Amino acid sequence: MNTLQQWRDHFDALGAYEEAVALLYWDMRTYMPEQSAPNRSKSLGFLSTESFRRRTGEQYQSLLGAMGQETLTGLDAISYEKAKQAFDRDSKIPEAEYQAFVTLISEAESVWEKAKDANDWAMFEPFLEKIVATERKFVEYWGYENHPYDALLHDYEPGMTVAQLDPLFAELRQAIITLLADLDGKTFPKLDWSADRETQIKLNHEWLNDIGYDFTAGRLDETVHPFQTTINRKDARVTTKYDQADYRNSVFGTMHEAGHATYEQGIDPELDSLGLGEGASMGIHESQSLFFENFIGRNRGFLEARYTGLQAAIPSLTDVPFETFYAAVNEVKPSLIRIEADELTYAMHIIIRYELEKRLITGELEVKALPEEWNRLYKEYLGVDVPSNAQGVLQDVHWSGGSFGYFPSYALGLVYSAQLNEAMRRDIKDIDELIASGSFTPIKKWLKENIHQHGKAKTPAELIEAATGQSITVQPLIDYLTKKYTRVVETL
Amino acid sequence: MNTLQQWRDHFDALGAYEEAVALLYWDMRTYMPEQSAPNRSKSLGFLSTESFRRRTGEQYQSLLGAMGQETLTGLDAISYEKAKQAFDRDSKIPEAEYQAFVTLISEAESVWEKAKDANDWAMFEPFLEKIVATERKFVEYWGYENHPYDALLHDYEPGMTVAQLDPLFAELRQAIITLLADLDGKTFPKLDWSADRETQIKLNHEWLNDIGYDFTAGRLDETVHPFQTTINRKDARVTTKYDQADYRNSVFGTMHEAGHATYEQGIDPELDSLGLGEGASMGIHESQSLFFENFIGRNRGFLEARYTGLQAAIPSLTDVPFETFYAAVNEVKPSLIRIEADELTYAMHIIIRYELEKRLITGELEVKALPEEWNRLYKEYLGVDVPSNAQGVLQDVHWSGGSFGYFPSYALGLVYSAQLNEAMRRDIKDIDELIASGSFTPIKKWLKENIHQHGKAKTPAELIEAATGQSITVQPLIDYLTKKYTRVVETL
Repeated sequence: MNTLQQWRDHFDALGAYEEAVALLYWDMRTYMPEQSAPNRSKSLGFLSTESFRRRTGEQYQSLLGAMGQETLTGLDAISYEKAKQAFDRDSKIPEAEYQAFVTLISEAESVWEKAKDANDWAMFEPFLEKIVATERKFVEYWGYENHPYDALLHDYEPGMTVAQLDPLFAELRQAIITLLADLDGKTFPKLDWSADRETQIKLNHEWLNDIGYDFTAGRLDETVHPFQTTINRKDARVTTKYDQADYRNSVFGTMHEAGHATYEQGIDPELDSLGLGEGASMGIHESQSLFFENFIGRNRGFLEARYTGLQAAIPSLTDVPFETFYAAVNEVKPSLIRIEADELTYAMHIIIRYELEKRLITGELEVKALPEEWNRLYKEYLGVDVPSNAQGVLQDVHWSGGSFGYFPSYALGLVYSAQLNEAMRRDIKDIDELIASGSFTPIKKWLKENIHQHGKAKTPAELIEAATGQSITVQPLIDYLTKKYTRVVETL
Repeated sequence: MNTLQQWRDHFDALGAYEEAVALLYWDMRTYMPEQSAPNRSKSLGFLSTESFRRRTGEQYQSLLGAMGQETLTGLDAISYEKAKQAFDRDSKIPEAEYQAFVTLISEAESVWEKAKDANDWAMFEPFLEKIVATERKFVEYWGYENHPYDALLHDYEPGMTVAQLDPLFAELRQAIITLLADLDGKTFPKLDWSADRETQIKLNHEWLNDIGYDFTAGRLDETVHPFQTTINRKDARVTTKYDQADYRNSVFGTMHEAGHATYEQGIDPELDSLGLGEGASMGIHESQSLFFENFIGRNRGFLEARYTGLQAAIPSLTDVPFETFYAAVNEVKPSLIRIEADELTYAMHIIIRYELEKRLITGELEVKALPEEWNRLYKEYLGVDVPSNAQGVLQDVHWSGGSFGYFPSYALGLVYSAQLNEAMRRDIKDIDELIASGSFTPIKKWLKENIHQHGKAKTPAELIEAATGQSITVQPLIDYLTKKYTRVVETL
């Protein structure tokens, strides 16, 4: 068999393991009966290890060597390059150190959970010390040109650097501060956000159908911590949680996950056999979920067109004028918890984490000083007092899992989504009317052609430049937020 | 690592593949979105092949060799013996012939489906010719002491022989003929069996809860062709179909599948790592499903105790006295289709197939003469005229899949279940009162101790003898049917 065929077979085999592992997880988090858990963990552990062996073992190494001898063009060349890069990067970490790190973070995650529950920073601190120390070491193994943090960004946003992010985030931070000042003293309307489970289920299905989420290549199910998962290229599932006290979590959360799923459904299936069948980066993936959540789900026309239906489903809205509802849905309120943040202040939570991570990695900031510095930045950037570490430095799981360099992707998702929104509005006439009337075909087609189909055969920068004609810039996001909140403020 | 540990690791690894494959199938038949199908088939194919390699490849062969050198006792010895036997049996078939057979039956199954739909025997005949010819050859490879059909029985009912089955089925056939004669001219009441989906769902869950089906180690979901599947030892799921025209299919079908699942949940988990964590045979497995379906679900006291609830759920029963309902539920009517047959005539459908299979394998009967012989036996044994091959010789999938020797297990399930029922009534006082009052703990405990926990560490004959003190005998089944239908007849 020729090398290229073996190469494809390799990724097809991995695909089978990935499908099994994804479904075993999905089931674990949706329908699995409780006593199944211990066996399920064992099976998942075994199959993940088996898939890891195939991705790293001797057989793969010799295949990679053979591919290096081939004259490759087009997607084959890209496939090989990405695989070689990843392999070389992984090879730089001595195996014993990597194993120790895996053990460390697995322990750290469960300690973090307890520490968060107990509001006990001291319990978690020694683990984070070790994790940061390891990250610093790994960064040196991997190497970097200008800033050690660049080596971490690479895992989530290939090609992104501190040199690019610093000015970008500075500009964004300034814009948010300005907009928050305009909103200062304004009072958003308070509404009753409760709705029963059945109403929310119906609403979610209606909206997903409206936006053309493909239920023949996906599903919507209930879970505790909502997620999107790709079982295979034509099976990208979303999950949600029905909080009877606040239906916003479910409806906007589902739009968000449907954005991820629509991306996954739209990747060219040919890329799967080349190891390129996944999102270009965490930031690009997040741009798709945020596009669906914010630029469709929170679009004024989208909500206005659906408001009569919403009022019929949720009696407490009967006497609420649409403008009041729209302002309430878009309430801005600097707060403590990232995942509960509004569209405007969300990025600030990320910027704070980015600054802290950078300084932890360079050594400018010690882990033991982290809580104090966290609280100082929340006060300075968002004006909020952090009453406890549980609501502060202990709130996110990421650091306990060693995911340094991940947070910026969330803000980059916002930045990219606004750039794509602006470019799409140049390419397609009357976007707002299409969204209001539920004609999503041209929008989905544009996203598929410009982003989805390419999988990770293109870099985030290549995708954004080709789609928008610009390199990465925060201006579209700032313009969008300014326009939106200026108009919202007028109604307050 | 010592050989015994490797042996256990081997079965644990297989367990992970089995869990993945079982869940991928379960999902395919319950929740999978339609576009997922082609990728799902590929993944299933890959993982099944991978698991097959592990069960047969060189590494396993040398492990088997090493185990042969060990001094083994107890379960370890049984584990090795069963594995060695299965391996030796498989090794007797030349690989090329086995491959050709796999290809043949895969083609034959889809041809059979079309032939059945088109009522076209001629389409299927050449495939069945080849299948029967292959079975005859395989039987010679495997070898047998007395009758070639014994070699086929071995796959489904280890240790069972034609010499045992012939007198057993003759006796059973005679008893059924006698009972049918008693019922001749009697008219069973006709009821409206329709119920909406929601009512059936509620009823199924109530009954499963009543009988103590463990929902923390299983689930009930909807499918097209109901089945039970074991995801892992503590995750044995059942499925059902809600036919709005006839709720009996769902409620009694679910009881049946819950019997299979309760068996699976009750196998000693230690046996999994020894390759012994499955049912002792098809017949023993069927005895458990039939016990739940017939000896619990169709038990007079069980139904009587639930009849007020049933009347509340199903308004058409409001004016139907219980005795009328009970007679209607137990209607006997010789018919064409095995899977729609009643409790009394079901075994006759099996006996017919058994006689035909035996004669096909010895060569006494030619495949081309099969439809005529089928129709003749249906007339002779059940008194029914077969109007078409679709409702006759083409009705079952088994032969197209090469499953010769399987059918007798269904009747053995009936025989075993009646033997177990009789023995249980000796060991536990007031079974009927326990069933009526929903006190299933002693019953489940008895089944677990006598049958479930042993997995396939004991043979069917060992289990039956230890549980009942008798070798296999049809007398308990005949006694049970006679008593039941004598009483039913009195009410007609």
